[in-house]
Amino acid sequence: MRGIYFDGKTAAYREDLPKPVPSQGESLIRVYMAAVCNTDKEILRGYRPDFRGIMGHEFVGVVEESPDDALIGKTVVGELNAACGKCVYCCTGRPTHCTYRRVLGMHDKDGCFAEYMTIDTSLLHLVPEGLAVEKAIYTEPLAAAFEIMTQVSFEADKNIAVLGDGRLAYCVVQALASKGHHVTVIGKHSEKLEQFIPYAEVTLEREREGYEIVVEATGSPDGIRQAFELVRKKGTIVLKSTYAGEVSLPLSLVAVNEITIVGSRCGPFVPALEALASGKARFPDITLFKPEEYEKAFAYTGFKAGFRFDRL
Amino acid sequence: MRGIYFDGKTAAYREDLPKPVPSQGESLIRVYMAAVCNTDKEILRGYRPDFRGIMGHEFVGVVEESPDDALIGKTVVGELNAACGKCVYCCTGRPTHCTYRRVLGMHDKDGCFAEYMTIDTSLLHLVPEGLAVEKAIYTEPLAAAFEIMTQVSFEADKNIAVLGDGRLAYCVVQALASKGHHVTVIGKHSEKLEQFIPYAEVTLEREREGYEIVVEATGSPDGIRQAFELVRKKGTIVLKSTYAGEVSLPLSLVAVNEITIVGSRCGPFVPALEALASGKARFPDITLFKPEEYEKAFAYTGFKAGFRFDRL
Repeated sequence: MRGIYFDGKTAAYREDLPKPVPSQGESLIRVYMAAVCNTDKEILRGYRPDFRGIMGHEFVGVVEESPDDALIGKTVVGELNAACGKCVYCCTGRPTHCTYRRVLGMHDKDGCFAEYMTIDTSLLHLVPEGLAVEKAIYTEPLAAAFEIMTQVSFEADKNIAVLGDGRLAYCVVQALASKGHHVTVIGKHSEKLEQFIPYAEVTLEREREGYEIVVEATGSPDGIRQAFELVRKKGTIVLKSTYAGEVSLPLSLVAVNEITIVGSRCGPFVPALEALASGKARFPDITLFKPEEYEKAFAYTGFKAGFRFDRL
Repeated sequence: MRGIYFDGKTAAYREDLPKPVPSQGESLIRVYMAAVCNTDKEILRGYRPDFRGIMGHEFVGVVEESPDDALIGKTVVGELNAACGKCVYCCTGRPTHCTYRRVLGMHDKDGCFAEYMTIDTSLLHLVPEGLAVEKAIYTEPLAAAFEIMTQVSFEADKNIAVLGDGRLAYCVVQALASKGHHVTVIGKHSEKLEQFIPYAEVTLEREREGYEIVVEATGSPDGIRQAFELVRKKGTIVLKSTYAGEVSLPLSLVAVNEITIVGSRCGPFVPALEALASGKARFPDITLFKPEEYEKAFAYTGFKAGFRFDRL
């Protein structure tokens, strides 16, 4: 089958990939559409040096084989972390942090940039009737944005800044705005900030008094330093950006100013699907490429690039 | 009067310091005893380059003048942050983070390494009857350790590691143990770890599965990296160390492992005084120096150095 393969250093389009065979408990998915995440680009920059395999973890597909008959023929999205069910994290309600987890397109598990993929059946979620594939493709990144509301209390009296004007920030704003939170987006590019105007206040400058909650969603190692400048004392920084390498920080300020930093990664699919289906969360159209155009897709600077894996 | 003065670069013993005059709302304190904190040493290393004045913020003294007659002649300890009462932090219950705060012996306010000091009367706490000066001198650092319990929920099912085997770690262990929490102290020096044995488990090695809560109390910039290795995914690191300069960190791990980092500084005096008075928190004897021996006191490597400011 056709797909995009990472060999530990670089990505390549291949047509000779074997069609995967589901293991016990897994379903076989024919991929309709897959989307490029910033994490995929970070993998190309060295973020996951040990990974070898098919890339990609955001997808919408149809179930072709499954131990759950009711799923066959259904359109689904899926979570990316396959858990062991036995480790200290699985036994304490943290399966996305399973010690032995395999991660779609990132660690020990082929991803979705291919015509077919396999996935633990328990990770699948039905796409609600009437939710188009082009909208459902945003479920995973939107779910990751919903995670912050499971971690931090966004009380009405706290002013909230989202740092960044790219896709990551957009997802965070959609998640927060869909739950009625008033948000200020602080970016560097006025043309990118425009897309936030229907959903949030936008600014190129910080509020003089700072913010109680700063969501760092720049996708860049520089974001945290700016977050340090923006957050109020005893305030909270939510870290959404992932990247390779280290950052140098005046960390002592965290103690002195009693700042809380909350790392946030994958999140719950159910509220994300609800927000998409109800129209409370809205996204620009994804720009689709053929899988053989993967270099163009990875280099795409518009809102979101993706692949359509039709077998036509 | 006699005292230890910081000129922005170095400390000096002086006998020509003017006896301070209380401003409105302040009390005049004759200092019985003052103690050296690691922060004082950090000031000598450049932690507070803008400060000029009498050093020191841990003291026990007697009230000689006060707008509150009931305090006169009483033995007291005092908090270090004088707040404006009007800024965004003062108006939202965070006076220790007041934008315009003056900090004893650190920022815009002379400290306690002198025969006399002045302090906002509202910052004073009576030393309970029967609590010796030599024990009460530990109130401020113990209060700072109690702060972590106002910030983080130390539930019984969470395993707790305290990182460090110095004074800062000792205070944290005393605060936690006085409230019945079981704690593992991870240090580098077996002879220092011995002092923790009555109050905590001690080890030179980490628990393989990591800890839900890691209190970084090494006082060193290296501590945070070790805390990253020790903390469980979705766990909490409490940062107590303050120091000058920056640290380089794989900060992306915070997002990936959804770690929470909580900075923690000054804390509540009331539970600290209670723990000291009840004997639930216990400290080694302080080693006292004459103020003119300040270099010895700052270089002292035992548990705690201090000064006695008798006027004899």
